[in-house]
Amino acid sequence: MKVRIMVRLKPGVLDPQGRAVHHALEGLGFDGVEDVRIGRMIEMDVADGTSDDDLDRMCRQLLANMVIEDYAIEKIGAEEPA
Amino acid sequence: MKVRIMVRLKPGVLDPQGRAVHHALEGLGFDGVEDVRIGRMIEMDVADGTSDDDLDRMCRQLLANMVIEDYAIEKIGAEEPA
Repeated sequence: MKVRIMVRLKPGVLDPQGRAVHHALEGLGFDGVEDVRIGRMIEMDVADGTSDDDLDRMCRQLLANMVIEDYAIEKIGAEEPA
Repeated sequence: MKVRIMVRLKPGVLDPQGRAVHHALEGLGFDGVEDVRIGRMIEMDVADGTSDDDLDRMCRQLLANMVIEDYAIEKIGAEEPA
């Protein structure tokens, strides 16, 4: 089973990396960019029997820093669009 | 317009960060994880008129390292599922 975990900074937490990218895009002449936030995407191949609970615990114990980050778990089936 | 850009290492490119996470998950007792790959997720708020071509150029010029990384652009409408 393929699982994608998105880890993003909580709203309100300063994102200096995003600001730097925003600034760089403007420097390259791309106008109209209003906000940039950068997160992590973790793609895992896990055994089919892995429970949602296990995935949740992986996020809380290791993959996300719950103080400043949120996570979202997406299961990607064989019918993945792209 | 909200846009999400996923940047991931090309297949075959070694992912030491993913390996470290894989190892750590096993150390925490999570069995059944077969593979872990880590990528970046860039979420941007861009002006509605921004063309696909512009987004493509942002990726190629700044957001992704085309030698070792692939990117995918997803537009997130107001009807975002989550």
